[in-house]
Amino acid sequence: MKRGFGSDNHSGISPEIMEAIASANVDHALAYGDDEYCKRTEQLFKQVFGPQAEVYFVFNGTGANVLNIDAMCRSHHAVVCADTAHINVDECGAPQRIVGCRLLTVNTPDGKLTPQLVKTQLHGFGFEHHSQPRAISITQPTELGTLYTLDEIRALADLAHQHNMFLHMDGARLANAAVALGCSFRQLTTGCGVDCLSFGGTKNGMLMGESAVILNPLLNVEMKYRRKQMAQLSSKMRFMAAQFEAYISTQVWRRNAEHSNRMAQLLFQALRDIPEAQVMYPVQANSVFVKLPNKVWNALLDDYFFYLWDEETDVVRWMCSFDTTEQDIQSLIAALRRRIQEYKAQ
Amino acid sequence: MKRGFGSDNHSGISPEIMEAIASANVDHALAYGDDEYCKRTEQLFKQVFGPQAEVYFVFNGTGANVLNIDAMCRSHHAVVCADTAHINVDECGAPQRIVGCRLLTVNTPDGKLTPQLVKTQLHGFGFEHHSQPRAISITQPTELGTLYTLDEIRALADLAHQHNMFLHMDGARLANAAVALGCSFRQLTTGCGVDCLSFGGTKNGMLMGESAVILNPLLNVEMKYRRKQMAQLSSKMRFMAAQFEAYISTQVWRRNAEHSNRMAQLLFQALRDIPEAQVMYPVQANSVFVKLPNKVWNALLDDYFFYLWDEETDVVRWMCSFDTTEQDIQSLIAALRRRIQEYKAQ
Amino acid sequence: MKRGFGSDNHSGISPEIMEAIASANVDHALAYGDDEYCKRTEQLFKQVFGPQAEVYFVFNGTGANVLNIDAMCRSHHAVVCADTAHINVDECGAPQRIVGCRLLTVNTPDGKLTPQLVKTQLHGFGFEHHSQPRAISITQPTELGTLYTLDEIRALADLAHQHNMFLHMDGARLANAAVALGCSFRQLTTGCGVDCLSFGGTKNGMLMGESAVILNPLLNVEMKYRRKQMAQLSSKMRFMAAQFEAYISTQVWRRNAEHSNRMAQLLFQALRDIPEAQVMYPVQANSVFVKLPNKVWNALLDDYFFYLWDEETDVVRWMCSFDTTEQDIQSLIAALRRRIQEYKAQ
Amino acid sequence: MKRGFGSDNHSGISPEIMEAIASANVDHALAYGDDEYCKRTEQLFKQVFGPQAEVYFVFNGTGANVLNIDAMCRSHHAVVCADTAHINVDECGAPQRIVGCRLLTVNTPDGKLTPQLVKTQLHGFGFEHHSQPRAISITQPTELGTLYTLDEIRALADLAHQHNMFLHMDGARLANAAVALGCSFRQLTTGCGVDCLSFGGTKNGMLMGESAVILNPLLNVEMKYRRKQMAQLSSKMRFMAAQFEAYISTQVWRRNAEHSNRMAQLLFQALRDIPEAQVMYPVQANSVFVKLPNKVWNALLDDYFFYLWDEETDVVRWMCSFDTTEQDIQSLIAALRRRIQEYKAQ
Repeated sequence: MKRGFGSDNHSGISPEIMEAIASANVDHALAYGDDEYCKRTEQLFKQVFGPQAEVYFVFNGTGANVLNIDAMCRSHHAVVCADTAHINVDECGAPQRIVGCRLLTVNTPDGKLTPQLVKTQLHGFGFEHHSQPRAISITQPTELGTLYTLDEIRALADLAHQHNMFLHMDGARLANAAVALGCSFRQLTTGCGVDCLSFGGTKNGMLMGESAVILNPLLNVEMKYRRKQMAQLSSKMRFMAAQFEAYISTQVWRRNAEHSNRMAQLLFQALRDIPEAQVMYPVQANSVFVKLPNKVWNALLDDYFFYLWDEETDVVRWMCSFDTTEQDIQSLIAALRRRIQEYKAQ
Repeated sequence: MKRGFGSDNHSGISPEIMEAIASANVDHALAYGDDEYCKRTEQLFKQVFGPQAEVYFVFNGTGANVLNIDAMCRSHHAVVCADTAHINVDECGAPQRIVGCRLLTVNTPDGKLTPQLVKTQLHGFGFEHHSQPRAISITQPTELGTLYTLDEIRALADLAHQHNMFLHMDGARLANAAVALGCSFRQLTTGCGVDCLSFGGTKNGMLMGESAVILNPLLNVEMKYRRKQMAQLSSKMRFMAAQFEAYISTQVWRRNAEHSNRMAQLLFQALRDIPEAQVMYPVQANSVFVKLPNKVWNALLDDYFFYLWDEETDVVRWMCSFDTTEQDIQSLIAALRRRIQEYKAQ
Repeated sequence: MKRGFGSDNHSGISPEIMEAIASANVDHALAYGDDEYCKRTEQLFKQVFGPQAEVYFVFNGTGANVLNIDAMCRSHHAVVCADTAHINVDECGAPQRIVGCRLLTVNTPDGKLTPQLVKTQLHGFGFEHHSQPRAISITQPTELGTLYTLDEIRALADLAHQHNMFLHMDGARLANAAVALGCSFRQLTTGCGVDCLSFGGTKNGMLMGESAVILNPLLNVEMKYRRKQMAQLSSKMRFMAAQFEAYISTQVWRRNAEHSNRMAQLLFQALRDIPEAQVMYPVQANSVFVKLPNKVWNALLDDYFFYLWDEETDVVRWMCSFDTTEQDIQSLIAALRRRIQEYKAQ
Repeated sequence: MKRGFGSDNHSGISPEIMEAIASANVDHALAYGDDEYCKRTEQLFKQVFGPQAEVYFVFNGTGANVLNIDAMCRSHHAVVCADTAHINVDECGAPQRIVGCRLLTVNTPDGKLTPQLVKTQLHGFGFEHHSQPRAISITQPTELGTLYTLDEIRALADLAHQHNMFLHMDGARLANAAVALGCSFRQLTTGCGVDCLSFGGTKNGMLMGESAVILNPLLNVEMKYRRKQMAQLSSKMRFMAAQFEAYISTQVWRRNAEHSNRMAQLLFQALRDIPEAQVMYPVQANSVFVKLPNKVWNALLDDYFFYLWDEETDVVRWMCSFDTTEQDIQSLIAALRRRIQEYKAQ
C-alpha cells in the first residue's frame, strides 16, 4: 500500500518528530519519566493547558482513555457517551475490563452529545441497583468528523458539574479540532471546564505519543500507580516526551492538522459535483463520510484502501492525513468517477 | 546524567534500530499490525522460535507478562513464581488487576525456582477454596542476574506439564541469557518446553519493543482481542516490527548483549580486588549486585546513578548496558576506590 | 407495611419451605455443598432439567447471572441482551466488574429479543477492536412481565449456536413462566436449547434460593472455583438445598406461581373497566404495568407501596406474589377508583 | 454424618435464630434492606459497636472481607496479612479478582501479625512500581485459633494509622474472641482503632449472617453500590437482620461462643494426657490443632470427620461448635486412644 484513505495512523512520522527522537538518543537518561525530557515536556503541557495540568504519557489512545476513566470512576460508576464513541465501540471492552464500570450510551445522529441527550441517562442517582452516572465523555472531533463548539463543550461541562460528575474529552485528534475552530488547546479544554483529556499525537505525525492530561486537580490522585498497573508506563519515556516537545514547540501539530483538514475540505468540495456520492456529516475536521452505491465502493477498494463504516447503509470513511497530497485527492476522485461510470454502464 | 549504571533501559537506541525506523517511515501502511513489516517480522519470529510460534507485539514488559498470564490463566488460577519476580514486585499489581489471579510466591536465594521449591506450592488441586496452580513463571536471566541452564528450564517445564500447568518465561533480557549460555533463542525456549515467552528488546538497544510469544499452540486462543482490550495494541505497529526485524536479522541483539555481559564481567573482575565490595550472586548476565558499606554507596551516588537494591542489607545493583564502555567501568571502579578510601579515613 | 404490590420478594416464606429448613436443622452436615441435602437436590435438578444439568447454588439472582456469564464469556466477549434486562439495568454493573465483558443492548418494545433484533448486534466477528458477541441473554418471563414461547426461545438458541454463541436464560421467575405456558421446566430450557439458566425461587416463596444451572456440558468448566471466587459459595448450604428440594418436590413452586399469575389476571381484568388505567404490556405472568395520571399514582402511593417504573411516562408496576389475596386485589382496585375520583374532582 | 469436628459451620441453627426467622415471616416487607427489621438491627449495631458504626449485611465471610477491602483499597493498593489469613488462602483469590489488589503476606508462627512483622512489608511508599500498602488485615481469633490481646490490636491500628493505612479485622468468629478475652465487641474493635470489621454469625448458630461493619466513617463511601455490584445484596434481607437481632439481643452469641470455647478447653485438657498428640498452638478459642502420627489421624478419619490442616507435618484441626457436647469430646478422645493403641500394636 503506497497511499490511501484508511486512517490518519496509516501515515508515518513527521521529520521534526524523527529529529527529536534522534536528538534525544544521546547518553543515558533515567527511565520511567524521571528524565529531563519528561520534566521539560511536563512543563510545556502546563504552558499549553494551564498551570494545573498534569500530564501522564501513555502508549495509545485506549490507554489514555482508560486511565482517565479510572481517574474519574470506580467500578460502580458509569460514563455517559455517544454510542459511536471510541471507548464504546473500538476498544474491545477495555473500560469494562480494566475499570469495571458501565458505559451509558446515547444514540446521536452526528456523534455529538447534547445536554438534552445526556439527561436521558441521568437518573437513578442514589439507587443502589443502578450504576451511578459519574462522567460524561465526548470525542473532539467526534468519530464522525464533527466538532463541538466551545459553547457546546461548556454546556456539557456545566451539566456534568451540576451533578457532581466530570467531563472527559477524547482528543486523539485534538489538533484537528483546534485548527478548525481557530482556538488554542487551552481554550478548547481547560477554558471550557473539561476535567480530563486524552491528548494524542500519533494520528498527526508522531511515531507514538498519547497522554492522559488531568485538568481538574481533584482527579490527580495516585495517577502514577494506575498508569503503571495498567501497563502504560514506558521505560525509555524520554523518546515519547521528546516527540511531544517537538510536536508542540515546533507547531508541527498545527501545520499537520491544518493540512489534513484542508485535504478533507478539498475532497468534500470535489464530491459536491458527484451526485452518486452523498456526504453524510458536516466535514469539519479531516474525515469525510460518504454514502456510495454498494458496487461502487466495492470496486473502489481495488484502487484504494479505506474502511466501510456502515455496511447496512453503504457509508465509507475517507480519512485525510498530514501527508495526504492534493494529487492523492485528485486521484481518488478520478478513480471514484471511473467506478461510478462503470457502475452506471452495467 | 551522562552515563550511569542505573539500568539497561537508561541507554538509548542502537544505530541499526534507528535506521530501521527511518526506513519504515515511507508511504502509508495499514495500522494495528496488518502491514508488511509486521507480517515479515512475524515470519522471522517463526524462524527464530519455531514454526508454531505466534508473536504479539506489545508496548512494555508488563504488558507482555500480563498478556501471557492471561493466555494461561483465568482469575481462579494461580502462577507460581519467585518472590523476587518482576511480575510479583515491580508491576504494581498488574496481574492481579488485569487477570485477577493469584501469584504464589516462593522465597529463593538466587532468584531461581527449582522443581523442589515449586512443589511447595503445588497443593490444593481440586479444592475450590484455593486458587488452582496453573502456571510457573521464571525470569531468564533472573532479576538477580543469574541464569537457568537449559536442563533446569526443562525440569521446570516437565514439572508444569505433569500437573497440566504451563511454563512462562519472562525474557525481558533474553538476549543476555542466550549469549551467556551460548545457545539459540529457540533452544532456550521452545527447546526446553517453554509454553509462552515475554521477549523484549527495549533493554538491549531498541527504542521500544516487547512481545508475547506463544510457543504452545494450545495457548493461542483469541489472543488478539486480549491484547487490544489490555490497551497493548499499537496503531503504527510497523515501527515496532521494523525494530524487531533489525534487532534479529542484523544480529544487533547478539552484539549488544555480548557487550553488556562482557562489561559486567569486567566490573566483576575489578571488584575481586576490593574487599569492601562483596558480590552477592554469580555474575552471569549484565548485572552485578554488590554489598557495600552504607556510607560508601551513599557517597558513590554523588558520582553515579544506580539503584539501592536492598536497603536492609546495603546491596546495590549495577547494570551494564549495550553502550557501557570499558572507560565507564574503570571510572566507576576508581570512584568506588576513592569513596572507600574516604570512608576508611573517617 | 402490611401488604403491597411492590415486588414478589416483599412476601415471606412458604410454610413448606420453613418446614424444610427446620427439618434440615439436625446434627452436623458437611459445609460448602458436600452434604446429603445438596447431593440429593443436585440429583433432583437432573431429573427436572435433564441428566446433563449441573446446578450451582448461589445467593442471589445477580450472583447466578454473573456466574453464568462467566461460564460463557471471557472479558473480551459480549452478551447481547434487551436494554431492559436485569443484567443491564439492575445489577449496578456486576457483569462489567466481575466478568469484565460488554453488554450489547437492544431496544425492544416488550422486553423480548427476537432473532432480527439480536442480529443487529452480530457484527465485528474477528475484528479485534470489537468485543466478540458470545452469548444471548433473555429473561423468562421478561422484566416487563411478557413471555417467550418455546418456539421463540428455540429460534434464539439456534441463532446463538449458528454463531458459536450460547443462550442464557435469566429465570428468576421461571416458575411463573412454566405455569403460564403449561410446560415443564425442562421443555422450557433444555428442550429449547438453552445453554445455561439462572433459576430462582426467592421470589416465589423461598427464604433464599438461587442457582446457576449449566445445561450445556461445554460450559461446565471449573465452575466451582468461579463460584467460590465470586463469594457465592454458601457454608451451610444444606439449608439452601433443602429449600430447593421442598420447592420442587412438593410442587410448591407450581402452586405459588399459579396463584400469583392468577392474581395478576384478576387485577388485569379489573383494570379493563377503568379507562384512566392503561395496561402497557400483555399480562402473561405475575406483573401488571399500568400507565396512570401522574396525580393518581402519586396519591395511590399513600395507600400502597409499589414502584414507579418509568417516571417520564407515568407507568407503574404492580407485582403479585404468592401470598397476594383476592381481597388485596379488590382493595387496590377500590383505592385506585377512589384516587381517580379525587383526581377528576379537582 | 451425625457429629464431627470438621468445622463450626457443620453445625445447624440455634433455636432462638429459627424463632426469629419464623417471627419475621409475616406480611410483606420492603426488600434489599429498606424494611423495619434491617433498620432496627442497624441501630442495634450502633449500640454494639459505637454510634459511628454502619453495617452492611452480606451473604458470607468472603463477601464481607472483599467488601471491606474494597472500602479501604483501590487496585493499586496492597493489604498486609498473615500468610495463613483466610483472605489469602481460602477465598480462591476473591480479593485479587474483585478488588484487583495485592496481598502482601507475612510468615508468622501462630497466625498473628505483629508491628515488627508488618513493617517488613512497609516499603516502596511513593514508588510507582510497587503496590502501595494501604491496609493491615488481621483475623480474630486467627485461623490457628489464637487471639490478639487488645493491646496487640491497638498497636497494629496505631502502626496502620501512622502510615495512612487502615486496620481490617476478619471477625468470622468474633464472638469466640470476645468471650475468651472477656470484653465487649466494642472494646475489641472500635476501642482498639479497628477501621472496618467482617462480623459473622454463621459459624456460631445463625443460618446465614455475615456483615461488613464500617467503623471509620472515612471508609463509609458509596458502600451500598459496591455491595450490590459484588452480588452481596440480599432481597429478603429482613430474614438476615432478624437473625442478627436475635443473635445479639438474646445473647445467644455469648452462650454459644462460651460453650464452643469451653469444649475446646475440655478437648485440650484431655489431650494433655496423650503424649502421641501434640497440641500446636495455644488453645484460646474453639479450635485445637494437633500433630498426630500419620497412621493415627488416617485411621481416626473413619470415626470422625475433620480436616487435615497440614499434610506435610501431619497436623489436624478439630473445631468445636455451639452444639458440641461433652459426650462428643469424650467419644473423640476414646476413639483417638483406640487408634493410638492400634497404631502402637502394629
